[in-house]
Amino acid sequence: MRDVHIDRLVEIVGERRCLWRPHQVKAYACDGYTAEEGLPRAVVFPESTDEVARICRYLYENDIPYLPRGAGTGLSGGATPTGGEVVISLARMNKLLAVDFDNLRAVVQPGLVNLTLTRRVSHADCYYAPDPSSQSVCTIGGNFAENAGGSHCLKYGVTTNHVVAAKVVLPDGDVIDVGAPFGDAPGYDLLGLLVGSEGTLGIATEITVRILKKPQALRTALAYFDRVADASDTVTDIIGAGIIPAAIEMMDQLAMQAVDKSNYHVGYPTDIEAVLLIEVDGLAAGVDEVMARVVEICRRHRVREVRVAQSDAERALWWSSRKMAFGAMGRISPDYIVQDGVIPRTRLTEVLQKIDEVSRRYGLKIANVFHAGDGNLHPLILYDSRVPGEAERAVRAGSEVLRACVDAGGSITGEHGVGIEKIGEMAYMFSEDEIHAQRAVKSCFDPKGIVNAGKLIPLPGRCVEVKRAREIIEENWQILNSFPDQAAVQARGAFVQEPGREASTSAQG
Amino acid sequence: MRDVHIDRLVEIVGERRCLWRPHQVKAYACDGYTAEEGLPRAVVFPESTDEVARICRYLYENDIPYLPRGAGTGLSGGATPTGGEVVISLARMNKLLAVDFDNLRAVVQPGLVNLTLTRRVSHADCYYAPDPSSQSVCTIGGNFAENAGGSHCLKYGVTTNHVVAAKVVLPDGDVIDVGAPFGDAPGYDLLGLLVGSEGTLGIATEITVRILKKPQALRTALAYFDRVADASDTVTDIIGAGIIPAAIEMMDQLAMQAVDKSNYHVGYPTDIEAVLLIEVDGLAAGVDEVMARVVEICRRHRVREVRVAQSDAERALWWSSRKMAFGAMGRISPDYIVQDGVIPRTRLTEVLQKIDEVSRRYGLKIANVFHAGDGNLHPLILYDSRVPGEAERAVRAGSEVLRACVDAGGSITGEHGVGIEKIGEMAYMFSEDEIHAQRAVKSCFDPKGIVNAGKLIPLPGRCVEVKRAREIIEENWQILNSFPDQAAVQARGAFVQEPGREASTSAQG
Repeated sequence: MRDVHIDRLVEIVGERRCLWRPHQVKAYACDGYTAEEGLPRAVVFPESTDEVARICRYLYENDIPYLPRGAGTGLSGGATPTGGEVVISLARMNKLLAVDFDNLRAVVQPGLVNLTLTRRVSHADCYYAPDPSSQSVCTIGGNFAENAGGSHCLKYGVTTNHVVAAKVVLPDGDVIDVGAPFGDAPGYDLLGLLVGSEGTLGIATEITVRILKKPQALRTALAYFDRVADASDTVTDIIGAGIIPAAIEMMDQLAMQAVDKSNYHVGYPTDIEAVLLIEVDGLAAGVDEVMARVVEICRRHRVREVRVAQSDAERALWWSSRKMAFGAMGRISPDYIVQDGVIPRTRLTEVLQKIDEVSRRYGLKIANVFHAGDGNLHPLILYDSRVPGEAERAVRAGSEVLRACVDAGGSITGEHGVGIEKIGEMAYMFSEDEIHAQRAVKSCFDPKGIVNAGKLIPLPGRCVEVKRAREIIEENWQILNSFPDQAAVQARGAFVQEPGREASTSAQG
Repeated sequence: MRDVHIDRLVEIVGERRCLWRPHQVKAYACDGYTAEEGLPRAVVFPESTDEVARICRYLYENDIPYLPRGAGTGLSGGATPTGGEVVISLARMNKLLAVDFDNLRAVVQPGLVNLTLTRRVSHADCYYAPDPSSQSVCTIGGNFAENAGGSHCLKYGVTTNHVVAAKVVLPDGDVIDVGAPFGDAPGYDLLGLLVGSEGTLGIATEITVRILKKPQALRTALAYFDRVADASDTVTDIIGAGIIPAAIEMMDQLAMQAVDKSNYHVGYPTDIEAVLLIEVDGLAAGVDEVMARVVEICRRHRVREVRVAQSDAERALWWSSRKMAFGAMGRISPDYIVQDGVIPRTRLTEVLQKIDEVSRRYGLKIANVFHAGDGNLHPLILYDSRVPGEAERAVRAGSEVLRACVDAGGSITGEHGVGIEKIGEMAYMFSEDEIHAQRAVKSCFDPKGIVNAGKLIPLPGRCVEVKRAREIIEENWQILNSFPDQAAVQARGAFVQEPGREASTSAQG
């Protein structure tokens, strides 16, 4: 509904950069996690820190809930509105502001696409290391919010290891600089706190990241194993030998089947249980010797065949088949949920057996495609949403898999975040005191509890600031409903049915 | 004074582990930063998380200020009482609780000495990477509090990159687990927030750290340069070539003079302006080639002589001469202040010139010994405390050096923390809004503002919780003064004179 608040937002960003009609904002009612949660009240597209600050200040002063949004590729619902919020899209703030090749730093706006940064610095033999599978579309601001990982974080670390400073608009519109482009930032590590906070504590509008020199040389191997256990032991022994590969990825039989039916046909043997994709990098003088040791360790664990890529094209095919594996699931199943748990890598075999047991008990196939080197599992739970009850069963199976990860000493997320999706599992992983400490941090940044409310931290009914947030959201819905626009009512209808935690059908990986 | 509070602490830890007589607690009135700030009310030595929690809960409930303490080697005063606090010494919690060699994790108590951890895992070819110069005495708990660095953090990162989880006693005595031994910890990065928080937000009682496999091979070079600018350019070009040495240390002429007068006589040429100590590590196959490239880059910048260590003994001597350089200052000056600023490494030459200019303007010699690879300067400002006004001049010169670092795009600390020492410079580096955000975090963990109050975050007089903390501290002083013990009165006398920010004379590095 166009009301005084929309008028005020239009004053800040102009008519063309403020969407508020229900058919316009409907596209922003979801992200990579689920089809639709709630319809936003409006979507604004600021182009500067100052505009973001003015928007946030106005919304906060007027108790209007809001949330930031990057490319919307997140898999846990961090950018999904719960209904009635203003979405602040950073899509138009997509500039590379500065690069310092001597000191290996780049300053970017949050809407810059991850891979674009690498492309823009590659002429100087540099790149940006974090490489989520969605890197060709996801933004560095979204990576910042979710502390995104990627295949190469085994050696190079996740987003928090590559962000060194940021300009941040706090919930009430104050602008602060956190971190330090060079050296330790004195005081509390607010930058570290903000990275991975899923847009609940503030909006980064300028991000300073490390860029790296490209490694002199790369060697990539594909290793086929008759048994998953042998592949798992190989992973443990490679790390135990003091080798830190750039990446060790694993896929199981079901995942290989899906990939071989897709456009990235590698021709995996149909009867092997696991394939490892192992990459080592470094100085030209050393990589061949390292790869020779990796091959030797594979052989010690009964590898059926191990091949080293003979060309860039071969390496690119192997990587594409891995990075597109999630999307390839569409070839073997109408729907799937991608999970994201972490375990100590020595417990891979045991937890994969547990996943197999869950799969049989629920009568649902589960494919495994994952970052084996750091024990970051991505079980893909296949189901058919047309079969009554199957979606709910898939959600429950996924939750059981995550609990198995926690029981094995791991975590409920490696790189996809908590968002809406894993709020329930937070209480399995953390004690009430631990969640209370998290909530205290939230309320110190956002005492009204209206910035991306309902994400990341489970909020008990008894919590005052949450009640306030819910009241505000309900008020907004009442305002929206009082507007006699059929589209809005219809859109809200879709929301009000509220089918619970719909299973993800995203093709991001 | 023995009062009801001391009685209660004795009930928790026993008579032998609670010191309260002024002559007993006097040794805890300072750390590596300064001779003496304030006398603690008592010093307790808990032996378990439960004891720490019970102590904190009691003190917090009764509004008694307290602070934690490791080995007391910190250089910025983080463990120095301001007067009247209870000091919680973690010295007796010094166990290595568990090691998982397959997954490369160790769980330690906070009082474990840094180097002891490396010694205890070295039989399995493992080590703990952060290596402050004080590593033979400083504790991992203290490293956690200060986010300690070391010579090898150029390649391996600082403490926060090596701590993965911790059990933490919050100010009010609640115990929570933060981080995750494996994988991303969901929710806010409270672990990252606690590392480097200088004991102002809680006390880590169990710390899970990464251990690393020792590199297969090391090569160490010593390179003499006629001109500082050539040494600086060499550093920039090594990094620019995509080489990440394990360490690049620099010393200037004055530092070399001091070291050569000490027990670690290397025999540096007396007429060179700078020496670089460069170490590369990795797989045996690669290191010789890398070192050859390093040597070539040194030659390109007119190195007078470059030598590669021919034995472990030679390497050990070179490293000892570097690590003991701070202590060696005693050979050339009665007193010195060690500063700790960071700059972009491309601005080394320019900032070293600025330091030289400060040195001449203040009429004080300044030696430079530092981690050149990551631009972490340690100017050593030499003075004679017997000359009236010279100590104050040295403090002012140090402050000017730090401001030059900030002006060059750097930071007021690389690894020594803020503590008491750099509270003044915080306001130079941060805006009022930025400091306010830090304060908000502090008050969310410690609403009474009584845990290690007066450290890290500048507290304005108008801040309510600070006033409360000051009142409590003053009350405690009144209690202490009402006790007719000459020693206490004398001790307090030393405190009350309050000579301002006394210059450091610590030998830690």
